[in-house]
Formats: sequence, structure tokens, C-alpha cells
Amino acid sequence: MFRQLLRLASVALLSLSTTAARYPSFGTLTTNTSAGIMNVVINNTFSTINVIDFHVLADLANLIEELQRNDTDVRVVLFSSANTEYFTSHLDLNFFLPGYQSPLPLFDPENPQRPFPVSILYNITQLPQATIAIVEGRARDFGNELLLAFDMRFALNSPSVQLSQFETSFGFNPAGGSQILAQSLIGRGRAFEYSFSAYNIDAVTAAQIGWVNRAFDTKSELYGYVQALAERIALFPPAGIQATKKGINAVSLIPVDAWIQQARNILEVLAPSPVSQALLKKFVQATNNQTIGPVDLNYGDGNDIVQLL
Amino acid sequence: MFRQLLRLASVALLSLSTTAARYPSFGTLTTNTSAGIMNVVINNTFSTINVIDFHVLADLANLIEELQRNDTDVRVVLFSSANTEYFTSHLDLNFFLPGYQSPLPLFDPENPQRPFPVSILYNITQLPQATIAIVEGRARDFGNELLLAFDMRFALNSPSVQLSQFETSFGFNPAGGSQILAQSLIGRGRAFEYSFSAYNIDAVTAAQIGWVNRAFDTKSELYGYVQALAERIALFPPAGIQATKKGINAVSLIPVDAWIQQARNILEVLAPSPVSQALLKKFVQATNNQTIGPVDLNYGDGNDIVQLL
Amino acid sequence: MFRQLLRLASVALLSLSTTAARYPSFGTLTTNTSAGIMNVVINNTFSTINVIDFHVLADLANLIEELQRNDTDVRVVLFSSANTEYFTSHLDLNFFLPGYQSPLPLFDPENPQRPFPVSILYNITQLPQATIAIVEGRARDFGNELLLAFDMRFALNSPSVQLSQFETSFGFNPAGGSQILAQSLIGRGRAFEYSFSAYNIDAVTAAQIGWVNRAFDTKSELYGYVQALAERIALFPPAGIQATKKGINAVSLIPVDAWIQQARNILEVLAPSPVSQALLKKFVQATNNQTIGPVDLNYGDGNDIVQLL
Repeated sequence: MFRQLLRLASVALLSLSTTAARYPSFGTLTTNTSAGIMNVVINNTFSTINVIDFHVLADLANLIEELQRNDTDVRVVLFSSANTEYFTSHLDLNFFLPGYQSPLPLFDPENPQRPFPVSILYNITQLPQATIAIVEGRARDFGNELLLAFDMRFALNSPSVQLSQFETSFGFNPAGGSQILAQSLIGRGRAFEYSFSAYNIDAVTAAQIGWVNRAFDTKSELYGYVQALAERIALFPPAGIQATKKGINAVSLIPVDAWIQQARNILEVLAPSPVSQALLKKFVQATNNQTIGPVDLNYGDGNDIVQLL
Repeated sequence: MFRQLLRLASVALLSLSTTAARYPSFGTLTTNTSAGIMNVVINNTFSTINVIDFHVLADLANLIEELQRNDTDVRVVLFSSANTEYFTSHLDLNFFLPGYQSPLPLFDPENPQRPFPVSILYNITQLPQATIAIVEGRARDFGNELLLAFDMRFALNSPSVQLSQFETSFGFNPAGGSQILAQSLIGRGRAFEYSFSAYNIDAVTAAQIGWVNRAFDTKSELYGYVQALAERIALFPPAGIQATKKGINAVSLIPVDAWIQQARNILEVLAPSPVSQALLKKFVQATNNQTIGPVDLNYGDGNDIVQLL
Repeated sequence: MFRQLLRLASVALLSLSTTAARYPSFGTLTTNTSAGIMNVVINNTFSTINVIDFHVLADLANLIEELQRNDTDVRVVLFSSANTEYFTSHLDLNFFLPGYQSPLPLFDPENPQRPFPVSILYNITQLPQATIAIVEGRARDFGNELLLAFDMRFALNSPSVQLSQFETSFGFNPAGGSQILAQSLIGRGRAFEYSFSAYNIDAVTAAQIGWVNRAFDTKSELYGYVQALAERIALFPPAGIQATKKGINAVSLIPVDAWIQQARNILEVLAPSPVSQALLKKFVQATNNQTIGPVDLNYGDGNDIVQLL
């Protein structure tokens, strides 16, 4: 049934408009550009937990295309969230459940072998701008992978900041996520600890081990530091930003083919397995289809995993 | 003479039993499995320092084969030690001395170009379970490489915890050890510092720089954290654990061929050199053939290296 | 005009002496060897800021050849500076300006495709000795890349210690520098932060994140630790030092071809661009051709970048 869905989705994409923006716009990203700095506020008004559903993915895909074209007016991009509890929660888990009809293709029309969410993450890592996340709330699963796809991450020391890769608890793996963590941020031992356990990490610990760049005790310190950093980088020649980015990417990212292969294995083999299907359904039900509430808010706190619901 | 020994060893292996366990069992590993968690206690009763001799290697090889076959009943493996001073000390240095007749092959019968100790370490990194070391005592040389081959390491803040790669002091290199340290745990600069110096590192410093995952002040905190972590992971689908492991391994281990090449260079060129032979003999003599005493206990503390004996 | 300069330089090299030392000696490096340890003091008497100009590069090239030949008498090399404010400041920026006639070839005569400064750095990473920097002052741009090319770095907790890669602010990238930082020392996120921003890092923060091995509060602690470390390593067999170095290098350095390609792109494309030329000229002028003064001393402190001069 899952493979059927993929085929349906591939057909669906043919009917998409190819003018201005490639995908329909859903208004989940508010942008505001000034003096070389674009502020992007993530606000999925279709979700109480800023879930990354097709609305956000479509808006991100359109934004990426805009940023790819505009590498001189915009030199730095800041991402933050309008949701006080979530930077972005996780992927809409309905993607993995049968019967879900995605209004978007599941594979990138430009790279038909590449799952659409991988394209989003990979393309973010390749943007010609410096990209920075300002984190005041939770980011788990694909939400944390999105954080890791940005160049830098600065977090508020707040109980709302809980980052995790929880995929193992559902029977699959955090493909790009745990690999960027292991290869370039927190090392093999800690990537195993957090990826295997689905434990949350708080802002201060995340800064100690390198998961985020820095943690700040107050919003004013957080925004003050990031704003000064962004204004400074925005003064620099785009050619310098882009060459620096290429150089660092070359030594700190998994090859995109490995990323694609693992993501396809998740989509086509692991997530469709009976054990994962049962866990995903249980979670979606227990969270009232991923609306705000204790199960989603506390997932990964030590007691509250899908196996214990 | 060293090459002669290798040939003798290869012949010896033909007489080994190939039933149930591939190698004879020596009882140096006590195992106990419950609710998906296997507890392995390392207790080399032939050694006062838990030296890694052929008894331990044979028992590890048998255990690895058992774990490779049993990836659903056992999902998490905890390794600890019955020796209050040593997790595991180091390789039995007699391996490197002429005249030593190994009861075990020095090369893996399944991969004849692969030295047996490399097979042990490499196969541990590829196990389908999550593997965790609980460290309350020393681990040096191959003892520390064994620690690094596990997915995670948690240590007690105790003067008995002294980790090191001391090979450089004997004229060869810590092949897999310093490479996992440099590539994925503590970085190039610190891997050089500890590998060149043969200095010990304590539990707290090791946790600060990423050599171990965490250090705990009391045994109850150490065992409490690890037990909760293990119980949690043991609830998760084996397919998730295995896919996560493959993903992290792909970005954080040296290719096994490089590992083999360096280990062969140590066995065949560096360790047999006159300078290394003299140092190895001196150490074996000064430690009363590697029994417990101040020389082995304090090796790497700043004053007590083989050059100063 | 820049390409013309490169051709001129290639011709110039033919007239260099090829006896004893390959390049003329300028006395910017004082060396003193005792008990297997060579102390190298960097003292560019042609510059108030220990700039890395052709004098220092030529002396480094000669020193490298000497060390390559002498891998048994010298086992450890310590690098420090006679300048109280600078370990080494940065590359002589005149290299990038038209009309500059380098008395040295810009490309390595042994590897004609390889820019000379890349050869210096790469050859330092491959030396048969253990190399250690003792840092009491600033090191930026190529000055910091020189630090990173050594195996280990120990720093004084002093306001004079300010490390940075400031290339992005001039429109090009810190080729080897930010890559060693990202690949093996401070991780992708922090390498982006410091490379994009051209911010200085102090000794204590640098030690916390792995940029330097350790920071010490007093000179006596700094020199005490390094001297003991050097004396210890100097006791060990050179074969062990060299095998350990090869093993760690194999997993923690970018391939030299990638290094060359990026350096050529800087020399031939990015630095000659009008925007970079304007910034470089402005900086050289504002620093009175790179003599000591507030602009060079404070570059990267948050307010003092070339865009704000």
C-alpha cells in the first residue's frame, strides 16, 4: 500500500503549477528582509505543534528556490518560530501511514530518486547564504534534522528547548540527523546515546557537547548575539560566504547519495513494517493526531515513549 | 622468528573445534540475559590485571558469534568488569615476544588477512545490538580500544579509572584506538596529545572532551543511568537499532582495510623491531609478567613509563 | 595582472640557490636543539606584528627540509614567538595585491601546481616529529592555519591570545583553516560561526571547544606542562611517533588536492576580484602596511573589521 502511495504522489506532481513559485504557498513562513538579512518565522497555522507537514515543506521548497536565485541581496537567513513551545516539532507522521494522500510529491521532481524531505535538508545545506536557527522550543525528528541542516544553531536556556532524534523508538533511523551529529558535532559515542535512546537534550547540555553553538539565559542575550552576528556577516562579500560554505561542507556532510539511500530505506522498508506501523498509529492516536498535549510535549523525557503509552 | 610464529598459529587453527562455539571456552566472560539486555562481566581469572590474553579473545570471539545470531532476544549488551582496578588492562604483551605459542590463530580464519584482535574490535562495532561499557577501572592499549569499539562508554569518577593508548611509548602506534579518538571523539589535537604522550586520562576529563559519554560520582548514579538507558533501548524495534547503528558507523569509523593494514604493520614490522622488543621485554619483566603491582597500575601517570623503569 | 605576477614568480625561482638550504635564510626562526627537542622561536625582525611574509615562509621551508632529513635527533619541535603580542599575525597581504614582486616562488618548485603557502602547511602536518605550538599572542588567517598545522596547541589565558580565520571578511575563504577546524577540532556549527564572522576566540573558549588543546593561567604552568610533555615524547622511539602521526593524519586532514584546489581558487579568482582587492588595500592602508597599531591588534573584536574602517 505504501508503494502505491508513492506512485500516486508521483502522478500528482504533474498537475502542479510551474510558474513563479513551484509549489502552492500556504503561508507557514513569514519573511522579512532588510540590509542583507532575511528573517524567516516558522508558523504553521494548520498545527498547534508546528508540525512539519506538506504545508511547511512546500513553503520551505519555495523559499529555497528564492534564496538560490538571490545570493546577493540576502546574505544571511535567520530562522525562528512563532510557536512558544516548538521550533518545529517533527515530520507529520501521517506521511508514513497508509491512506495518506500527499498533496505534494514524495520525491523531488528535479531528482526523482531523492525523497522530497531529503531534498529540503540537502538544499538548505547548500544555500549560498549563511543560515542561522534561533531556538526557543522543541525540535525532534525531522524538526531537529532541519536545525542541523542550518549552518549554526543558537538556543535559549528554557525548559521548552528539547531536541531529539526519536526515530529509533519507532523502528527506523534518523538518517541525516544522527549522521551530522556523529560526523561533525557531538561525536560517535554521544550520537549513539541520543539516537538510540530518543532522549531529549536541553539547551545547556547541547551547547556543552556541540549540538548547538551556544545557549543563552535570556531572550535578549540570545537575540542580541545572533543579530550582531548576522549584521556582521551581512557586511561580507557573498563570494567569501559561499567559498567558506563549500569548504566546510566538503568535510562535514555525508555524501548526498548515502543520505538518499537511507531515506528511501526508511520510506520503503522500515517505516512500512508492521512493528513501525503499529507504533506510529499508536502515537498519532495518543497525540490526537499530533495536536498539543502532554504526549507530544514530553516525548523523550525518560518516561514518555510510544512503548509506554 | 615473528613470521615463523604467525605460520605456526595458522596451522594451529585447523585443529580447533567448529561445533557450537568456534573456540574453546575459558570462562572469562560471565553473561546473564533478561528482558532483552545481556550483562557481560569480564573476569579473566588467569590474570590479576584482567589482561586481554588468548582466553579473553577466544571468549569474546565466541560471544560475538552468539550476538550476531541473536539480534532479537538481545537488543542491548552491557560490559563491565569483576576486577576492581581494571576494566581490562591491555593486550597480553607476550603476543609480541618471540617464543610465544598462541593457542589461538593470530589471523581471523574467516578473513585470513585480518589479525585476530582487529576482527574482535571490528566485529564488535558491527554488532546488531546497542553496546555499552560501564567503566570502573583502568583500560589501556587494546583495553581502551575495546572500550572505543563499544557504542557508548560511561565511567565512574574514581582514581582507578585511567584510560590510555600507550603504544607510542613502545615504538608502535595505537591503530584503531587513536583513529577513533581523532576521527570521532576528541579531535585531532587531543588525539595527538594522548597518543603521543601515553598519558592516562581520568573519567571527568574524558567526559569533558568526549572520550567517554559521561562520568558519574557514585556507582549508584552510574549503574542507575546505564540501567535506565538500557531498559529504554531494549523496548525499541531491533530494526531501528540496527539501521541507526549502520548510519552512525558509516561516518565515524576508519575503513576496515586501513585498520588491517596498520595492525599488520605493527605485528610484522614495528613490534618485532629491536627497539620495541627491548622495551616490551623490559615492561613484561618489570611487571612480573603483567601481574598486579605499581608498574602496571601507574603506567602513564607522568613518571612511570617503560623508558624510566 | 595577478596571473602575470604568478608567471614572474615562477621564473624568479630558477635563480634560487639549490645548495645546503633551498632558500636564502632570513633569520626569522631561532632554533636550539637539546635532548631530542628543538625549540623554534618565531621572530620576524622585518615586522612589528610577526607577519608571515616571504622571510618567514622561506625560513619555514628551510626548517621543514632540515626536519624531514633529521627524524631521529629531533623527535619533538616546539614553536613559540618572540613577539609579545603575536604568535604570528597573518599572511603578508601584499601577496594578494598587484605589483607585489615576491622574492620567492608562489608555487612549490617540487609540486608546481601547489601554492607555496599550502606546501608549508601540508609539509608541517607530515613532519616525522611531534610538533607543538606554545601560544601567547594573536594568530589570525594564515597565522592560525599555521597553528592548526601543528599537531598540538597550548595557549596562555591572556588578552593577547586572539585566534581567528578572518578571510571571509575579505571575500575569500580560510581554505585549510576552517576545514581542519570543522573536520577535526570544533565541528561544523562552530567552524561556520567563527569562519563566517571573523570573530576572535580567546584561549579559554578555544580550549573548551577543542581549537587548542589546553589553556593555562600562567606562563609557568604553560611552559611546565609543554616541557614535560615534550621531554616525555622525546624518550619514545621515532618509529612509534611516526606511525601514530600517519594514523591520525589519515582520518583528520582534508586530501591535499582539495586544499590545493581551494588555495588556487583564492589566489587566482577570489582575492583578485575587485571587491576583495578594495578591502585588502583598505586594510593594508589602515594598518600602515601591517605595522603594529589598533586596527591590526583589534581586528575581529566585534567592532573592528575592514568594512567598518
